[in-house]
Amino acid sequence: MTNWLDVAHEVAATLRSDAADRDRANQPPTKEVELLRQSGLLNVSDWTVQQRIGRIIGAADANIGHLLGYHYLQIWRSGLFDAQFSVRPDQFWAGVSNPLDAALELSPAGDGFVLNGRKTFATGAAVADRLVVSATRTDNGEKLTFLLDGKADGITYLDDWDNIGQRLTASGGVSFENVAVSEILGVQPANEDPRISLAAIGFQLVLAQLYVAIAEGALAEAADYTRTKTRPWFVSGVEAATEDPYIVAAYGEMVSQTRAAGLLADEAARQLWEASELGRHLTPAKRGEVAVTISEAKVVSTKLVNEVTSRIFEQVGARGTAAKYGVDRFWRNARTLTLHDPVVYKAREVGEHFLTGARPAHTGYS
Amino acid sequence: MTNWLDVAHEVAATLRSDAADRDRANQPPTKEVELLRQSGLLNVSDWTVQQRIGRIIGAADANIGHLLGYHYLQIWRSGLFDAQFSVRPDQFWAGVSNPLDAALELSPAGDGFVLNGRKTFATGAAVADRLVVSATRTDNGEKLTFLLDGKADGITYLDDWDNIGQRLTASGGVSFENVAVSEILGVQPANEDPRISLAAIGFQLVLAQLYVAIAEGALAEAADYTRTKTRPWFVSGVEAATEDPYIVAAYGEMVSQTRAAGLLADEAARQLWEASELGRHLTPAKRGEVAVTISEAKVVSTKLVNEVTSRIFEQVGARGTAAKYGVDRFWRNARTLTLHDPVVYKAREVGEHFLTGARPAHTGYS
Amino acid sequence: MTNWLDVAHEVAATLRSDAADRDRANQPPTKEVELLRQSGLLNVSDWTVQQRIGRIIGAADANIGHLLGYHYLQIWRSGLFDAQFSVRPDQFWAGVSNPLDAALELSPAGDGFVLNGRKTFATGAAVADRLVVSATRTDNGEKLTFLLDGKADGITYLDDWDNIGQRLTASGGVSFENVAVSEILGVQPANEDPRISLAAIGFQLVLAQLYVAIAEGALAEAADYTRTKTRPWFVSGVEAATEDPYIVAAYGEMVSQTRAAGLLADEAARQLWEASELGRHLTPAKRGEVAVTISEAKVVSTKLVNEVTSRIFEQVGARGTAAKYGVDRFWRNARTLTLHDPVVYKAREVGEHFLTGARPAHTGYS
Amino acid sequence: MTNWLDVAHEVAATLRSDAADRDRANQPPTKEVELLRQSGLLNVSDWTVQQRIGRIIGAADANIGHLLGYHYLQIWRSGLFDAQFSVRPDQFWAGVSNPLDAALELSPAGDGFVLNGRKTFATGAAVADRLVVSATRTDNGEKLTFLLDGKADGITYLDDWDNIGQRLTASGGVSFENVAVSEILGVQPANEDPRISLAAIGFQLVLAQLYVAIAEGALAEAADYTRTKTRPWFVSGVEAATEDPYIVAAYGEMVSQTRAAGLLADEAARQLWEASELGRHLTPAKRGEVAVTISEAKVVSTKLVNEVTSRIFEQVGARGTAAKYGVDRFWRNARTLTLHDPVVYKAREVGEHFLTGARPAHTGYS
Repeated sequence: MTNWLDVAHEVAATLRSDAADRDRANQPPTKEVELLRQSGLLNVSDWTVQQRIGRIIGAADANIGHLLGYHYLQIWRSGLFDAQFSVRPDQFWAGVSNPLDAALELSPAGDGFVLNGRKTFATGAAVADRLVVSATRTDNGEKLTFLLDGKADGITYLDDWDNIGQRLTASGGVSFENVAVSEILGVQPANEDPRISLAAIGFQLVLAQLYVAIAEGALAEAADYTRTKTRPWFVSGVEAATEDPYIVAAYGEMVSQTRAAGLLADEAARQLWEASELGRHLTPAKRGEVAVTISEAKVVSTKLVNEVTSRIFEQVGARGTAAKYGVDRFWRNARTLTLHDPVVYKAREVGEHFLTGARPAHTGYS
Repeated sequence: MTNWLDVAHEVAATLRSDAADRDRANQPPTKEVELLRQSGLLNVSDWTVQQRIGRIIGAADANIGHLLGYHYLQIWRSGLFDAQFSVRPDQFWAGVSNPLDAALELSPAGDGFVLNGRKTFATGAAVADRLVVSATRTDNGEKLTFLLDGKADGITYLDDWDNIGQRLTASGGVSFENVAVSEILGVQPANEDPRISLAAIGFQLVLAQLYVAIAEGALAEAADYTRTKTRPWFVSGVEAATEDPYIVAAYGEMVSQTRAAGLLADEAARQLWEASELGRHLTPAKRGEVAVTISEAKVVSTKLVNEVTSRIFEQVGARGTAAKYGVDRFWRNARTLTLHDPVVYKAREVGEHFLTGARPAHTGYS
Repeated sequence: MTNWLDVAHEVAATLRSDAADRDRANQPPTKEVELLRQSGLLNVSDWTVQQRIGRIIGAADANIGHLLGYHYLQIWRSGLFDAQFSVRPDQFWAGVSNPLDAALELSPAGDGFVLNGRKTFATGAAVADRLVVSATRTDNGEKLTFLLDGKADGITYLDDWDNIGQRLTASGGVSFENVAVSEILGVQPANEDPRISLAAIGFQLVLAQLYVAIAEGALAEAADYTRTKTRPWFVSGVEAATEDPYIVAAYGEMVSQTRAAGLLADEAARQLWEASELGRHLTPAKRGEVAVTISEAKVVSTKLVNEVTSRIFEQVGARGTAAKYGVDRFWRNARTLTLHDPVVYKAREVGEHFLTGARPAHTGYS
Repeated sequence: MTNWLDVAHEVAATLRSDAADRDRANQPPTKEVELLRQSGLLNVSDWTVQQRIGRIIGAADANIGHLLGYHYLQIWRSGLFDAQFSVRPDQFWAGVSNPLDAALELSPAGDGFVLNGRKTFATGAAVADRLVVSATRTDNGEKLTFLLDGKADGITYLDDWDNIGQRLTASGGVSFENVAVSEILGVQPANEDPRISLAAIGFQLVLAQLYVAIAEGALAEAADYTRTKTRPWFVSGVEAATEDPYIVAAYGEMVSQTRAAGLLADEAARQLWEASELGRHLTPAKRGEVAVTISEAKVVSTKLVNEVTSRIFEQVGARGTAAKYGVDRFWRNARTLTLHDPVVYKAREVGEHFLTGARPAHTGYS
């Protein structure tokens, strides 16, 4: 039986070996997705294993961890609807769904629909085999979620993603012009539905896990640098940077905080799976608890990753700022990814729940 | 079957109801230990349940959580030796073992020994039925650990604990004058022994759990105050303090951080139990990993509890500083307890392990 | 010529010598005010010297620094009105003016008025010779500010201040029953008046200076303890606590931050004096700038003092939590005093000004 | 009379207009130095004005602020020796002096010397007209400081600076092959000399001022973005990002902290000038105090700038991570520059002085 964690570690090693170079080159992640495909990791279906793989890959390359985490999530969220759908082996999934944009439009046409409109920030879509898309029916206002072939006629990838971090995530916009739609997953219920609405908090969970992964990756790379390259400061009185009292304690603090954040993200993942398994039996109260735990994980890991990815430079030292090492990519990835939505509003959700028992509203972000 | 968590919650409610008053009164915890005894909580033997009870009681009253946590730990650590010993129901255990003091002395006398010397900071000893004590044999230098009746002839409790926090823990000194010793648990091995040395990190774990418990208790009490007494600030534009954006987000941040710290303390507890169950099969490597996890828990929870217990005042407001509410006791307890040993040296252990794989030395604190 | 700073240092030394004992005894500051009176410090009229004296006394005893800072402020703010008034030597001034309470009422009677009503939190009033009081005329709604003899008939001090910090500030409530009022300072203008409204931000400045003073006092006392009592940690490898790398660097960080906060408070003081000297020429724009600088000082010093007064325990060590040392009084004083009004709303004022140029509204707190 | 601050603001506006583009282009700062030259700013000789100009230019472009700050400093430090030297108008000065490299070698040749060796990290040297260089005499071991023409025969600029921040500072290495040396400034005294050793702490001051400047520049650019581009979060309930309570308070906190750090850097500058003016009358004690104040400024501003330049992204929002805005350059510049030497050793100097009165050793960094 394949040990998928071993496979993940191998893929991670490959990604890590030139992550800084690829970040600089700033090309679409075609080769990287192919690497995932060849490895078989795209086909892993066990939730817990997916979570661990996400952290392993995300630590090595936050871009590819992001793509893989969303891939797993798109398949999982498609299963929240009652419709059957096929998951062909080795296909890479992505989604198109920025909730802040105007909705895409679905017009009835023959047995199906045609899709029109434009969305920004569709992470991974440009390199995806399958897309999970949502749009509003022009005839009755219903919001449908459906599957598309990533290469379907009428889809144009705008290639307009050029940001300081997560540069290889192909997070550009997508436009749809009369794209034929037939593979419907389901209708977004008019009222709040605990189950279908899990999708939104699923994305939040992927982000929280990635933040932890970036911190783990940054610490590993920094420690490697400290062990092999950092010179002890000339008045420190020690022979090696690994003996400098300040460097050692700083790592200890960061490693400890990262461990705690990781356990909280894992707990959130466990709760989301449990909720997802309840299916129609999932209650609003239970959905609310999971949402709050995920928000907690996001609050903790956001603070963590922004601090760790900046602080490591103090353990690495001045020469570690050479562009060739690319140590800044961890912070740039973290800083970009943690702005997905403002974390203080996650803290607000947690605080409201704690003070009044209020459950997070169902939105594209909660 | 008794649900011990329910019992713990009942005892916690009782303790919470006058915790501020008892803190001010500053009396030995005789009644409180009696409450534990009557409740049956002293007899709980399941490790995981003990951990949860410790957090519940510690949140309500950190003093009594401290006594109970050490009680469980003394029984557990006595079992690390191979000797048989009896645990009579309803007895309250404590220990005498400050590693920074000079060792107590055991002189052979008849079939047994007599004990002489003096130790400081023997939490709970003055109100204990059974004491776990360590001392050095005057004839051969061996270090023995043994049990004593808390009221045995020759023991004097110095009643010299008057500190800003943990006031009810009876953490004063003890002197021994020719106290007869017969119930030997075992000899401290001359070389590092993974199993016997678990005791030291067991104490560290109790502290980490207590730090989390204090944060949990402080948040609960502060939230209760915010909900019922705090007035919204006059320029805030909100009708209730629970709607103030800053107050709500502050709770959200603190609750999230506390959750993460709690999960790390739980993970440390799980690992320690696992290690303890290995008995003679426990390896130095495994013992090292557990020690590092416990240190991580201590690093995270120390920072957490000192921050939370001070920050809550901003959510409580000016009138919450009235002495009658005693909201400062959480910080005073935290500040006192977190100085048990300097946390930065725990961070150093974690950092050394991360950078070089080094395992914490076996000391009275690691 | 008297060097008032030398006098302040002498008074500070006296206050420091038993500050912990007096905090525990929790008596009205009668003797302490007498000490100020005998020293001549009450009569110092130079603004810059007052500011420095306030820091010196506040570092030694935040209670008495508070009383003295408000004393100087009450005399200064009385001068913002055009009326003449006498400042008799050696009199101790205080005020009665909690803006969050209902206004006191002034009813015309003969040539003057009679005063009725009740106010909370009148720092120093119970031990004051002169009181600055504001109240609303029952006949025309004007708000007058006037002077009273602290011992005038009809004034009752409620002695209801028993808080965790600033215990010796006599900050209890006051009730007025038909108290005769004749010494009117002036009318609070109906519209926003830059000059008269300086009083409110003057109080804010006194608080900011006190926060810095408490941090300075806490650092001095902690350093003294570290130098003379703290034992080096047994695995630190150093001979003295003053050589422990973590202890030394922690002091360095705290001292540096305190220095910066102190300079900002001094700058705020300088600006307020400059504004106050402009008299009728003070513009709303200039008043706004001063208010913002004072808010900045409050934001910085609030964070500082709460952190420093808690963190010093890590440099002092476990035995420094003995109640007899009273090291916790710095934190209790800071925590109490920094809740005077919520600091985040000061940050909001600064941020609004920075983003939009908006000036703080004229309120009792800004 | 020219108002040099107005000139500085004009130059700053020019630099700011394409700072992000120039950062990306990563070319030597030839045009930028020419801009400084044309503006006349290179010729400003008033210390206080230099400090203010440094902050203004550094806020607009930390690279050029760095070059200008060092330019002023090289001229000033040349004056610490007794030798006369000419400062020709419009010349740009830089230095070659990384204390961590092996010393350059000066061999007697004719009336003068020839210089050989190699140094790393010679900020600005490659674009400088005049160089201040130090080297060791091969015949007697004396360390001399002298001036060179930046284009002198035998000097090669290695163009090996490619780092994540301060990309335009031309901070590459320099090699010297038989370069003729005649313009000697003086001999580095064998024993500690308060005056000559001011140079080292002068560089530290320039860094502290630059850190503050970067924070100021980052806040200004972020605020401009928040005002004009940031969308209010959809659940915030406000109409504009400038009304979001969290955004506003965050700016307030950062602006306040930056103000305090700036005042401390200014105070350090004032003290250094005072010390420098004392000439031969400068005592070791006074030199020590100045060094400590500069270290305090560095401790405070280092923490500040790394926090502010990362935190501003939360006020800017997700779209502000687009590469075209280059908002990350502030953090990259700060992160690179603050590693010049490890700040925790500055904290150690401050702490040692506070605890024991010890004065910083005279080194290349203190």
